[in-house]
Amino acid sequence: MLHDLFSPEVQHALDLAGIFVFATSGALLAVRKNFDIFGIAVLALVTALGGGLFRDLVIGAVPPAAFGELSFFVTPLVAAGCVFFLHPEVQRINRAINVFDAAGLALFTVTGTTKAYEYGLGLTASAALGLATAVGGGVLRDVIVNEVPSLLRDREMYAVPAVVGAAIVAVSIAFDSLNALTTALAIVTTFVLRLLAMHFHWQAPRAWNRRSSVAEEQ
Amino acid sequence: MLHDLFSPEVQHALDLAGIFVFATSGALLAVRKNFDIFGIAVLALVTALGGGLFRDLVIGAVPPAAFGELSFFVTPLVAAGCVFFLHPEVQRINRAINVFDAAGLALFTVTGTTKAYEYGLGLTASAALGLATAVGGGVLRDVIVNEVPSLLRDREMYAVPAVVGAAIVAVSIAFDSLNALTTALAIVTTFVLRLLAMHFHWQAPRAWNRRSSVAEEQ
Amino acid sequence: MLHDLFSPEVQHALDLAGIFVFATSGALLAVRKNFDIFGIAVLALVTALGGGLFRDLVIGAVPPAAFGELSFFVTPLVAAGCVFFLHPEVQRINRAINVFDAAGLALFTVTGTTKAYEYGLGLTASAALGLATAVGGGVLRDVIVNEVPSLLRDREMYAVPAVVGAAIVAVSIAFDSLNALTTALAIVTTFVLRLLAMHFHWQAPRAWNRRSSVAEEQ
Repeated sequence: MLHDLFSPEVQHALDLAGIFVFATSGALLAVRKNFDIFGIAVLALVTALGGGLFRDLVIGAVPPAAFGELSFFVTPLVAAGCVFFLHPEVQRINRAINVFDAAGLALFTVTGTTKAYEYGLGLTASAALGLATAVGGGVLRDVIVNEVPSLLRDREMYAVPAVVGAAIVAVSIAFDSLNALTTALAIVTTFVLRLLAMHFHWQAPRAWNRRSSVAEEQ
Repeated sequence: MLHDLFSPEVQHALDLAGIFVFATSGALLAVRKNFDIFGIAVLALVTALGGGLFRDLVIGAVPPAAFGELSFFVTPLVAAGCVFFLHPEVQRINRAINVFDAAGLALFTVTGTTKAYEYGLGLTASAALGLATAVGGGVLRDVIVNEVPSLLRDREMYAVPAVVGAAIVAVSIAFDSLNALTTALAIVTTFVLRLLAMHFHWQAPRAWNRRSSVAEEQ
Repeated sequence: MLHDLFSPEVQHALDLAGIFVFATSGALLAVRKNFDIFGIAVLALVTALGGGLFRDLVIGAVPPAAFGELSFFVTPLVAAGCVFFLHPEVQRINRAINVFDAAGLALFTVTGTTKAYEYGLGLTASAALGLATAVGGGVLRDVIVNEVPSLLRDREMYAVPAVVGAAIVAVSIAFDSLNALTTALAIVTTFVLRLLAMHFHWQAPRAWNRRSSVAEEQ
């Protein structure tokens, strides 16, 4: 369905771009943790491919694209290599990384939701799985390096733009109007919302009535 | 086979009850960790659906019930919403939560073992997978928030009642006598054992001869 | 294909040996963490079966061998029982454990790569999945007990011998020459490289230009 909007080649290039930027975020975290080159490569692979791997296992698309498509496997290694040699520069362009990460989040949400629906899931389930595709790699990355996933602490509402994007796709399918326009709308909305959330430091509410006298766990 | 005991509607209602109480335990932990509303929802979903998702992937039941059954997805969100607004009250009824959690453990163990056997697994494997279904969500919950799973520290022998319940189901199948009576026996035994373990603070043995001079890791 | 080299019985015995030594490493870690007997059993099972379980889910081999083969399930429990009663002696033979672990790493890498290729994956993907089979259980073990996987910190280049072994298998397949000789070469090379890496404390490089002034995260 996305092919109305993008040719398969463009679609593939965008997939690789999303994988590349997610891999970069994993590799940078590995450098921060002082892992060696193999740790950098592993964390890049897990971050870039974890979300799609989970999606493909759930919908029964075996072997998952992560293992069926050579370029999906090589791209994170290239990203890891770039970070290994260039990481002071990469860190300096942290702002650019965030923009690319937002683009990856937008694309993975929309393609994940669409692919889940094509494999027969219901609308809500497809949107949920699209969301899981977009955030899954980052959760795996954080769990493996022994940190609480930033998704849960939800700095600047990381999940919200993806929820909105997945909902737009699901509603479009429900009204039989998933086409180039609505797909682009979902991608752009997710992307822009994420940039706005970062720029204005939007915060989601904590539980009501949480007593301040209760010591906060770290 | 469980339908001898419960009508599908009752069975479904009991499944949802188990999902609801497990989701509540995840949401309460998220509140304790001071996550925002999205972190609460994610942890409720993971805790309630993680065990069944693992079971369905292992037996090849794709898409897993967690993604095929809308009510399975909505129920944890309702539980998360309840905790978000009511959590001081929910914490006050911690005792009731433990009783419901024991009921969920009992039901998930028995239905997990039965479903695994129906999908062609052997008796021991079915019992093991039933056990994994019952405890899997809690393990995921603890791993994600960066705590050692309470299953491993096995406060008050959390796993033991589930092992007994799964064994009763497996033995019943082996003697071709899985019926309403033996199913009920497995559920009630698991439930009562769990309540007794909590009430009397049963402890399982640590490794023999562990030298006290060895500093204990935290 | 491995049957050229080993009879199915020998192959099965070697699989069980690999499972046994990996289970032992998990059980020993559980003792060090002061878990009780159920925690020891769970960690032994996860460490021994996690890698193969992941491989079988990815290639769509359901039910996974871990749940289809009774001996694969019983062996880790036997290992856990041995550690429970004998662990001071087991710790004293730590050196022997490392040798067996190297043997398990070698065997799991080669059989994992071969099985992945038999299920239709490409050469690079097969090698990657063979590697994941060999290291997956240890990663799960470390994540569950809340430690950064030793694979990522890559003490003494744990992954490198497995990479080499998987590459030998993949190249052999590419040149249509996977036979008893090349299979044995892959196993022995992985095994010997791992022993050499431990003996000489080989270290992989960290990221270039990492400023020492940046405080190292623990």
